[in-house]
Amino acid sequence: MGLTIQLLLTGDELMSGATIDSNSAYISSQLLKEGYPTTRKVTIGDQFSNLVDNIHYMSKVADVLIINGGLGPTQDDLTAEALAKASHRPLLTHPDALTHLTNWCEKRGYKLNTPNLKQAILPEGVDILPNPTGSAVGLHMIFQNCHIYCTPGVPHELKTMLNESILPDIKKHFPLIDKTHTTHLYTFGLGESFIQKLIDEQLPNWPKEIELGFRAAMPLVELKLTSHSTNLLNKKEKWENRLRTLLGAHIISDSSPHLAEEVVKSLKLKSLKVTLAESCTGGLIASQITSVPGASNVFDLGIVSYSNKMKHKILDVEDDTLNRQGAVSKEVVIDMLKGALNLSGADLGVAVSGIAGPDGGTKQKPVGTLWIAWGYADKIETQLLYLPGSRQFFQQFAAAAALDLIRRTALNITEPPLWFKLRKP
Amino acid sequence: MGLTIQLLLTGDELMSGATIDSNSAYISSQLLKEGYPTTRKVTIGDQFSNLVDNIHYMSKVADVLIINGGLGPTQDDLTAEALAKASHRPLLTHPDALTHLTNWCEKRGYKLNTPNLKQAILPEGVDILPNPTGSAVGLHMIFQNCHIYCTPGVPHELKTMLNESILPDIKKHFPLIDKTHTTHLYTFGLGESFIQKLIDEQLPNWPKEIELGFRAAMPLVELKLTSHSTNLLNKKEKWENRLRTLLGAHIISDSSPHLAEEVVKSLKLKSLKVTLAESCTGGLIASQITSVPGASNVFDLGIVSYSNKMKHKILDVEDDTLNRQGAVSKEVVIDMLKGALNLSGADLGVAVSGIAGPDGGTKQKPVGTLWIAWGYADKIETQLLYLPGSRQFFQQFAAAAALDLIRRTALNITEPPLWFKLRKP
Repeated sequence: MGLTIQLLLTGDELMSGATIDSNSAYISSQLLKEGYPTTRKVTIGDQFSNLVDNIHYMSKVADVLIINGGLGPTQDDLTAEALAKASHRPLLTHPDALTHLTNWCEKRGYKLNTPNLKQAILPEGVDILPNPTGSAVGLHMIFQNCHIYCTPGVPHELKTMLNESILPDIKKHFPLIDKTHTTHLYTFGLGESFIQKLIDEQLPNWPKEIELGFRAAMPLVELKLTSHSTNLLNKKEKWENRLRTLLGAHIISDSSPHLAEEVVKSLKLKSLKVTLAESCTGGLIASQITSVPGASNVFDLGIVSYSNKMKHKILDVEDDTLNRQGAVSKEVVIDMLKGALNLSGADLGVAVSGIAGPDGGTKQKPVGTLWIAWGYADKIETQLLYLPGSRQFFQQFAAAAALDLIRRTALNITEPPLWFKLRKP
Repeated sequence: MGLTIQLLLTGDELMSGATIDSNSAYISSQLLKEGYPTTRKVTIGDQFSNLVDNIHYMSKVADVLIINGGLGPTQDDLTAEALAKASHRPLLTHPDALTHLTNWCEKRGYKLNTPNLKQAILPEGVDILPNPTGSAVGLHMIFQNCHIYCTPGVPHELKTMLNESILPDIKKHFPLIDKTHTTHLYTFGLGESFIQKLIDEQLPNWPKEIELGFRAAMPLVELKLTSHSTNLLNKKEKWENRLRTLLGAHIISDSSPHLAEEVVKSLKLKSLKVTLAESCTGGLIASQITSVPGASNVFDLGIVSYSNKMKHKILDVEDDTLNRQGAVSKEVVIDMLKGALNLSGADLGVAVSGIAGPDGGTKQKPVGTLWIAWGYADKIETQLLYLPGSRQFFQQFAAAAALDLIRRTALNITEPPLWFKLRKP
């Protein structure tokens, strides 16, 4: 193991759940970009003795301890006082911090008040980290052989201080020889355990030093390949290429986890327009496409036909077909798609009809049944899928499946996706 | 100090900063609602020895330890193994977990594979916590006098398990004497600071012992009233009623933060059907309505007309109107709504057209401009709104505004909402 970097996040609002902590993710990702992985994070409320104990213990075990929050002017801002107590140093008015505060107030036409003055009373011997936009300066001290950095909780103040003062300081004190290299691959349609099994079977000698991580990010699964040394870079690329070949078109992107963005990109690339006829997804496919800026280049019309009557009236599905085959059938999705293509004049399209539940299932067509039709007017394909689970899961997966089929059609990927087999009734 | 509740959050994605941890905020806020504050949170990556050490140490000092993440089928899911090692118990195939997995796979038509089987290999003597929607069961054991609960990282699986199994179990083992009473009021359209100012002005003597909290949960703002003793219950109800009167129809619900659910409920109550003509929201309104089970009772047809041509062809908006007034205009949304009402035969409807950005704005109609029309065929109303911000904010707010206007129309609320004034150009 290399450097031990720990974060101490403070604030009652983090403990109550009222605030979702995004600061620590920012700190960790910035550190990691420079090759410094975070080892551990601890989150506690604004209790003084708790702060003192954690600062004392964490600075004993870590090489770098970044403390976030508790530098403000109010009575629940206790970091400086706790740091003094933990490191057995007296609290003194720090001349540089006082200058900063005086200037900060002057610039804003405020009078320096008692709560603000508190922000200049700091443990003896700390270094000041500048805060160009806020009243709270950051602190740095070495205690128990650990570099302790105290940072403000306000996100943009933290960001400036981290990038301009703390990261350069860490790089100076702990220069890296080796760098961490990471690739993200976003896949659709295959479960984590299926991908794991595929790799175990097809790439059985996967090297341990190329770390492979999985993360389900419904409807996608993210694969992360990491090597912790530049020496391993060639090896990482070799195995990454094998993995890319293995997963093929199931990989949506290596940069963004947004399927709809990839769909809009693919359609733009080929100068194609898409149309949608949605029943069970109720507009979700359209809303995902139109969430992407510039969607109007590739999309003109979507029909949400949520009843048989509307499937007939708007999309021209024959009443006879609806009555004989039912709304959730191959014939109906084909006719829905033809109807939408006719109305819109789009190049290609998708139609979906299914049973999202929780009600409406039958023995023949249980909740989770989905018929999907896609393609060009002269080349319509269909597939029956079975997606049992919650209504939310069904709609999310059905929309993602439709988006993926648009992407595959636009990119002329003819091989059927493996998830056709995995999601069959 | 009362009960010591600690959380252990696991996953490399939390340490790299790739994922912002929202699970722990959810756990803490649910615990707090029931009167159980969280004492400390620790976040670590997927390193086995690190997991073992932290489980061992945290279960020694805490009364309750909730572990989140690491129950999946892949090789980086190590929680069960680490728990076994920390508690000195052997790993065995757990019959109930195996049954769950077998059923889970069977229901989906999968074969139980080796990675999945791993999810049934658990420390001896643990209790299983059911997971109705995922493959990973939760775990409960008592070790070092600490109740340890292991939960899956997938948010909706965690939520179900927390609310249905873990919270009831904690309440059973650690009953509270004086109870916290909490009311949640979900409002739409007014900002936090606006509501705060309204309360300061209209209810200036708000008692300190009735805690008032705000939480922005886009597009809603949640107000939380808390009293920490049963003695205060009457007082809380009195002030709660004053607050309800003050905010009136801006309160969407006191039970659920889901605007679309309230819309479907209101329409069902009045036996009304709604139709939608969406331009800038691109199907988002339809998808939110159809995310609610039973939406087919109140909704038959939605048109996503994303170009002028389609507004004319499908919704019968005059070309002349489009050319002279532009697609984002009062006349066009009125005609879009008339067109959708005609096609669908619905009782009432909403039409929206606006400039979501980032491109497409002009001096007269900048990004953020929204025209909205709503009502019955013989009583169509319109409003111009200005919603500057990101594309995502614009679409979310516009969809929520449309839903709120459907709700108000269905419920015969004639007074215009305050947000008409607040969101004017």
